[in-house]
Amino acid sequence: MQIISGTEIAAQIRESLREANEKEGIRPVLAIIVVGYQQESLSYVRLKEKAVTSIGGETHLMVMPENSSKQSLLNSIDRLNQDKGVDGILLQLPLPDHLQKDKEEILSAISLEKDVDGFTPANRGLLSGDGAEFTSCAALACLEVIERVYPELEGKRAVLVGDSFDVIIPVATILLKRGCPVSIYPNYQEGLVNRADILVVEKGGPEIIEGAEIKGSPLIIDAGFYWEAGHSCGNVKGDSVTDNEGYLLPVPGGLGPMLIAKLCENLSQAAWRNRGNNTGIDTDNRDLKD
Amino acid sequence: MQIISGTEIAAQIRESLREANEKEGIRPVLAIIVVGYQQESLSYVRLKEKAVTSIGGETHLMVMPENSSKQSLLNSIDRLNQDKGVDGILLQLPLPDHLQKDKEEILSAISLEKDVDGFTPANRGLLSGDGAEFTSCAALACLEVIERVYPELEGKRAVLVGDSFDVIIPVATILLKRGCPVSIYPNYQEGLVNRADILVVEKGGPEIIEGAEIKGSPLIIDAGFYWEAGHSCGNVKGDSVTDNEGYLLPVPGGLGPMLIAKLCENLSQAAWRNRGNNTGIDTDNRDLKD
Repeated sequence: MQIISGTEIAAQIRESLREANEKEGIRPVLAIIVVGYQQESLSYVRLKEKAVTSIGGETHLMVMPENSSKQSLLNSIDRLNQDKGVDGILLQLPLPDHLQKDKEEILSAISLEKDVDGFTPANRGLLSGDGAEFTSCAALACLEVIERVYPELEGKRAVLVGDSFDVIIPVATILLKRGCPVSIYPNYQEGLVNRADILVVEKGGPEIIEGAEIKGSPLIIDAGFYWEAGHSCGNVKGDSVTDNEGYLLPVPGGLGPMLIAKLCENLSQAAWRNRGNNTGIDTDNRDLKD
Repeated sequence: MQIISGTEIAAQIRESLREANEKEGIRPVLAIIVVGYQQESLSYVRLKEKAVTSIGGETHLMVMPENSSKQSLLNSIDRLNQDKGVDGILLQLPLPDHLQKDKEEILSAISLEKDVDGFTPANRGLLSGDGAEFTSCAALACLEVIERVYPELEGKRAVLVGDSFDVIIPVATILLKRGCPVSIYPNYQEGLVNRADILVVEKGGPEIIEGAEIKGSPLIIDAGFYWEAGHSCGNVKGDSVTDNEGYLLPVPGGLGPMLIAKLCENLSQAAWRNRGNNTGIDTDNRDLKD
């Protein structure tokens, strides 16, 4: 299989954004709210900060105490909504246990125009209607890979595995609106890979898909993430597919870096709109088949 | 095929609601906003008024001038949101042409707790996460029929045809969350009926599915609506399936009356919550196979 480098595509996207922001003299500002001091959340946040800096933007990190109340979080979000100097607001998930039941209400407080993660219920719902202000970065990353491999979707069969609001449901909705039939399975079942031209697999298990199972030449987007014996991996056993036909967006170095690049793209769009510049950027849609 | 009477199920649902409302001494109030004097919209509204009356509720109809501005509509919705005497708010679609581009913004103005149509973007989006306050009545009607025929979904294959935010996307999301794989096609293709235990077909054409095509014993939910030669029909040619195995929710007398009954159910729930009674009603989930 041809291994698609999410790291490389992410670097291309960020470089296009850096150039565009520099040309327009725009410095996008992302506010990041973290509740508590979870090491894993803070590591992700560092990656996002670094990416935003690389496109000529800046981040304001607000680390709130672990025991913050719902109301204090809503107040913080409201201040950032009002702040004209902030283009995008990101609430790092997961929230501490005592706030989990209020997650949707808290996300709902983020202004749709600053919701660069595309996680507010309203932006999620708008996708099935007239279109969202912002779409989930992970879903946008999947779609960019799909478009690079298959510029034409006609006649393609997409199989999606999982039921998440940030990957599977939005990818399904967008493909469908573009005329592409989709089949969605809550969990991976053996052989599913052979029913798909495009397989997005979020729910499976560590390295459960091996090359020996794959008969055709699918595009596989691995949207799983596991720690096994001290290294990260996805649903596909990467070193088992070298002799197969098709394309793989692997874990690590696949969806992870790409979704952060898509966050930078959403943030830049928010900043351009915020400053009355609505032209947008054509990201480098290099066709992997050429 | 066994023809499922949506009219009869709707009457059962309404009767259960009438009894429960009477027992609790609750009179649910639905505000209906219609913009302009389209005959078709007003005919639908009459059916909804009649249904709400039949469950012991009342409706307040507000017919606004055809040339109403977005702002005047938003003001009206805001007043109804504040009005403690109103349990549910329904904005009759379609809106006049000049308001079409603002449809999502106008729907968004309806308070989630009064959105008994389940049409606000936020309620649509919540379905893919922690759950909506209210779900589209047409989707709920489809699910009630599915549950009556198949109390257990395990091992069932659902095929949905269309891409609408009020039928196909919510039915797909709910089935998926219940562990049932779904395949969604933007348009009907010959033979799809034979790949499904459950077929919900919204996009097809007048009477394009005939008995001769059907080999197995599917449950078909016809969610199409057309006028042909002076009579209403759906995607399935009703009189052609009498010798087939399976179940058909037909047009007319199928989804239409059922979705209005589901509106009454949503409205009653809004009223019970509004009055601090959150127990809910078990609707009569009679198993059609028994």
